[in-house]
Amino acid sequence: MNYRKVGKWGLKISELSLGSWLTFGNQLDLNATRAIVRYAVENGVNFIDTAEAYANGIAESMLGMILKEYRREDLVISTKIFWGGDGPNQKGLSRKHLLEGTWNSLKRLQLDYVDLLYCHRPDPEVPMEEVVWTMDQICRSGLALYWGTSEWSAEEIERAHQVAKELNCMPPIVEQPQYNLIVKERVEKEYAPLYQKYGMGTTTYSPLASGVLSGKYLEGIPQGSRLDRWPWLRKLLEERGIFEEETTRKLKRLKEIADGLGVTMSQLSIAWCLKNPNVSSVILGVSSLDQLKENLKAIEVKEKISDELYKELSEMF
Amino acid sequence: MNYRKVGKWGLKISELSLGSWLTFGNQLDLNATRAIVRYAVENGVNFIDTAEAYANGIAESMLGMILKEYRREDLVISTKIFWGGDGPNQKGLSRKHLLEGTWNSLKRLQLDYVDLLYCHRPDPEVPMEEVVWTMDQICRSGLALYWGTSEWSAEEIERAHQVAKELNCMPPIVEQPQYNLIVKERVEKEYAPLYQKYGMGTTTYSPLASGVLSGKYLEGIPQGSRLDRWPWLRKLLEERGIFEEETTRKLKRLKEIADGLGVTMSQLSIAWCLKNPNVSSVILGVSSLDQLKENLKAIEVKEKISDELYKELSEMF
Amino acid sequence: MNYRKVGKWGLKISELSLGSWLTFGNQLDLNATRAIVRYAVENGVNFIDTAEAYANGIAESMLGMILKEYRREDLVISTKIFWGGDGPNQKGLSRKHLLEGTWNSLKRLQLDYVDLLYCHRPDPEVPMEEVVWTMDQICRSGLALYWGTSEWSAEEIERAHQVAKELNCMPPIVEQPQYNLIVKERVEKEYAPLYQKYGMGTTTYSPLASGVLSGKYLEGIPQGSRLDRWPWLRKLLEERGIFEEETTRKLKRLKEIADGLGVTMSQLSIAWCLKNPNVSSVILGVSSLDQLKENLKAIEVKEKISDELYKELSEMF
Amino acid sequence: MNYRKVGKWGLKISELSLGSWLTFGNQLDLNATRAIVRYAVENGVNFIDTAEAYANGIAESMLGMILKEYRREDLVISTKIFWGGDGPNQKGLSRKHLLEGTWNSLKRLQLDYVDLLYCHRPDPEVPMEEVVWTMDQICRSGLALYWGTSEWSAEEIERAHQVAKELNCMPPIVEQPQYNLIVKERVEKEYAPLYQKYGMGTTTYSPLASGVLSGKYLEGIPQGSRLDRWPWLRKLLEERGIFEEETTRKLKRLKEIADGLGVTMSQLSIAWCLKNPNVSSVILGVSSLDQLKENLKAIEVKEKISDELYKELSEMF
Repeated sequence: MNYRKVGKWGLKISELSLGSWLTFGNQLDLNATRAIVRYAVENGVNFIDTAEAYANGIAESMLGMILKEYRREDLVISTKIFWGGDGPNQKGLSRKHLLEGTWNSLKRLQLDYVDLLYCHRPDPEVPMEEVVWTMDQICRSGLALYWGTSEWSAEEIERAHQVAKELNCMPPIVEQPQYNLIVKERVEKEYAPLYQKYGMGTTTYSPLASGVLSGKYLEGIPQGSRLDRWPWLRKLLEERGIFEEETTRKLKRLKEIADGLGVTMSQLSIAWCLKNPNVSSVILGVSSLDQLKENLKAIEVKEKISDELYKELSEMF
Repeated sequence: MNYRKVGKWGLKISELSLGSWLTFGNQLDLNATRAIVRYAVENGVNFIDTAEAYANGIAESMLGMILKEYRREDLVISTKIFWGGDGPNQKGLSRKHLLEGTWNSLKRLQLDYVDLLYCHRPDPEVPMEEVVWTMDQICRSGLALYWGTSEWSAEEIERAHQVAKELNCMPPIVEQPQYNLIVKERVEKEYAPLYQKYGMGTTTYSPLASGVLSGKYLEGIPQGSRLDRWPWLRKLLEERGIFEEETTRKLKRLKEIADGLGVTMSQLSIAWCLKNPNVSSVILGVSSLDQLKENLKAIEVKEKISDELYKELSEMF
Repeated sequence: MNYRKVGKWGLKISELSLGSWLTFGNQLDLNATRAIVRYAVENGVNFIDTAEAYANGIAESMLGMILKEYRREDLVISTKIFWGGDGPNQKGLSRKHLLEGTWNSLKRLQLDYVDLLYCHRPDPEVPMEEVVWTMDQICRSGLALYWGTSEWSAEEIERAHQVAKELNCMPPIVEQPQYNLIVKERVEKEYAPLYQKYGMGTTTYSPLASGVLSGKYLEGIPQGSRLDRWPWLRKLLEERGIFEEETTRKLKRLKEIADGLGVTMSQLSIAWCLKNPNVSSVILGVSSLDQLKENLKAIEVKEKISDELYKELSEMF
Repeated sequence: MNYRKVGKWGLKISELSLGSWLTFGNQLDLNATRAIVRYAVENGVNFIDTAEAYANGIAESMLGMILKEYRREDLVISTKIFWGGDGPNQKGLSRKHLLEGTWNSLKRLQLDYVDLLYCHRPDPEVPMEEVVWTMDQICRSGLALYWGTSEWSAEEIERAHQVAKELNCMPPIVEQPQYNLIVKERVEKEYAPLYQKYGMGTTTYSPLASGVLSGKYLEGIPQGSRLDRWPWLRKLLEERGIFEEETTRKLKRLKEIADGLGVTMSQLSIAWCLKNPNVSSVILGVSSLDQLKENLKAIEVKEKISDELYKELSEMF
């Protein structure tokens, strides 16, 4: 496993990492999760990502029970605050929710601190100084080592840096955006100036576009798969034209290339993400141990992607 | 129940909220208070206001016992520091009293932190930097999430913001002034520039002018009412001309309008306060569960106030 | 008892206060000390001053045992750090000694915090930024509410304020100098610009010039008196010409005036200190309950000093 | 024993001090270490230096057990963070490793704080603001009293001071470089501007160049000596030409001088280090009690080095 720096900063994370969205506490019970974490860590994964919102806190609670078997320094644990509940002050980036959300996440995780704490979305309703003051306080009091953002616009990230400078606060060091063969605009274009200017790292999620790039939906929606379990996700992809002929044609070409290299579509898609040097880690959201084993092999596939092939893949969707 | 932001800041409070001045520990014993808090919360009130001065700390102590039944994140609890006792250092906004007062209030409230901490009055005897340094320290050490002022002049609030900027401290975000059909100068005129400039919110108290606007004193002073219990309050209102013919005439006109809408004078008066968008929450100081039930209905009355009627009410006193 | 503000700051201290130098743990045992503290507090004294150096920490330890009988908010407790022991890092104002000294003083005092923490002398060997950073840290972490200096030059105090401003730190608010009819240069001349400019307060010690102004040494040195117990103190006074004819003549004139007013020399001398509005409190170092009772009456004597008499006293030595 | 200030700062350390590199937990077991610490402290050594890297933490653990016999204020304890283990985040100066390393070191040392915390090497992979923010946080939260660097270039130290000034953070106060008759460039030339400009102190290690200057390798490598135990050290010295004729000739001249003064080569070499006023303390890395006894006598030898002899020694290698 290779370890990459989070942008210019000192933290080092495995280039493939373990997510928990829709899996821990949903598709995976405690024992299955424990086995997956075990396999990932034994194969060099040191970064595990969760959020207060995942499975209504159960993802964090499961992780909390599992993490006791590991040495804290060996792991980089992140969580994200935004959706903590239904109450008027349990959502968003107010100082009240950021602090209460962090205190509650740490209790569920049974940890003294997380390594990374993300603002899970931007919150236009909260002044940037309120967010920056609070994230800085959380870092300086030792509840988190670094802070970051998730799905913020480049402009919002710029603003956070300006405010941090004005208030003598610690700035965000990392963004967590979606990134895959189909959705790549933000990481490649919108954020382009930020990598150099602020040394920003990225931990990207959804490398398979909710499973679409694995090819598993080419023959319809398998029972128990995400699109079967979560109609809202299916609808979202439908709206993006995922099931139209055009996309199906492209996916078949992707399969052709993968077959030619003797790898799976998933491995090829993940390997393509890894070729981007501005990606600090690709977060895998696996729903079985077999999927994890398959996807971790993407590291070896990376070397098989020639410049020419990289160009074709990058222009495919 | 609607929830409003406290000015531009991220905290959200119910537009009607529960005060404890003269009621908790005075007109209301522990059981009555518990029932009122229960009803308020079940009907969407999330903001409860108290102060170290109310019933010499008993209001806080009662609230502390009652709050154990609720989830902390569901509530916004505020207290205020200024009158903590008779000793030379138990009054005002000195660093000594602000810190000792806060530590003692939190003990009585059995809480780790309050959401809002108010400086209950301005203190011209204490340098503004002493106040701002201390309130900032209280917020950054997690004993309060935000701080505010109560009955400060616009000039004093401006000065607090300047000093906070100079010292890189967190500024106050909210004022707690009196506001009702009779007393409205400060909220509408004096503070006018502050709402935009600093995103200041207000939590207003005394929406019924100590019961006068409920009409209950039109036929004399009922036994057990506030003016019966507290001669100093009666005298204060007398000096304001509340019992003169002119006022009585206006109150009768108010009753006429209320009757015409099929609502009580109290509901109409509170609803009028709610029409002001610079009011974040109207604090109700009820002395019985029935009063609370009556007053909470003011929310529906708000819609019944036409622009024309709003104008008439605003110019009435 | 009158309470005065410490300069422009919010803390209020009794104009007569209780010191512990040479008395607690030396001339006074635990029971005698307890009785003196009791009498002082019952008669309105709210400020008690000690130091890590007094009786090698025993003054603080005694006070710690005694203070348990009082409510913390009713008292203003100060201690001073400089002479903590013989080791190379147990003396002076290094960050190491300031922090270790404070931690140890608080343990002896059995307190969570002192109200005032003094740098007991200037330390030219330590950079001012080291002192200011550390005192600021002690205040912001809640171990002391305010900090001050003792026997620093005006220039050193000025420098502390400059550095505090540069480093965004809390400045000293109070000086503790010697001040009496004989030694008055520093308080009246050297510090003159500081009162206005920084709102500096003073807590003055040695109002009787080690007993000289009480007249007790006019007939020789009584057994058990300070000059009898501490030869170094006797020598110091001898060098200042205290036992020369000139001084004896002046002391006799002082006695004449005191007799004329029907008060003691001590009361007159202390009352003269109280006439200076830049004095926040006069610290009494009594060695018996009777002395305390006598000296506390100085408050009433203050009114008996006419402008003319004040002038004569001020020019006497 | 003389005590020197660490540069311009308030901390005072014995001019000879005790290191633990290659000795505690390696050449010395717990009992031998305990005896050496005892002798050192009884002879005035107040500064003991260790590192998380020494004997993989065992040096710190041993010291932790031994330190319980001493009063904390009598000692100056330093440790260093950089090499904490093999994991991707257990090495270097990332915020994650600095904080986790410090927490773990303090646990092994069984201390609440160290007096000095060193960044054991520069880390070009970590932005200077990340290092400075974190060291400042460690100092302000009371885990370390002061921080320093070890084997940083003058340029890196300059940069740390600039960043500390920009971010209003506490700067490093001390460097720990190698310094002896053979290796002296950095201390004498490269750091020259820093002593005055920043009041930087130095605690220098390897005064005998890994034993070479003791003359013990003149007749080959004794069994159990460092060069016998650690081939990498032997190789390092070989590469520096330590075993070439030229060096041997110089060492024999050194022996001649030492013999002439009636002292050992070690004592003379250490005494030469002490002559440099920019050296705050010379750290001795003794592997036996006898060696400690011998080396501590270097203090008396210092006086025997005339200006002429100092010149000869300084130009010898």
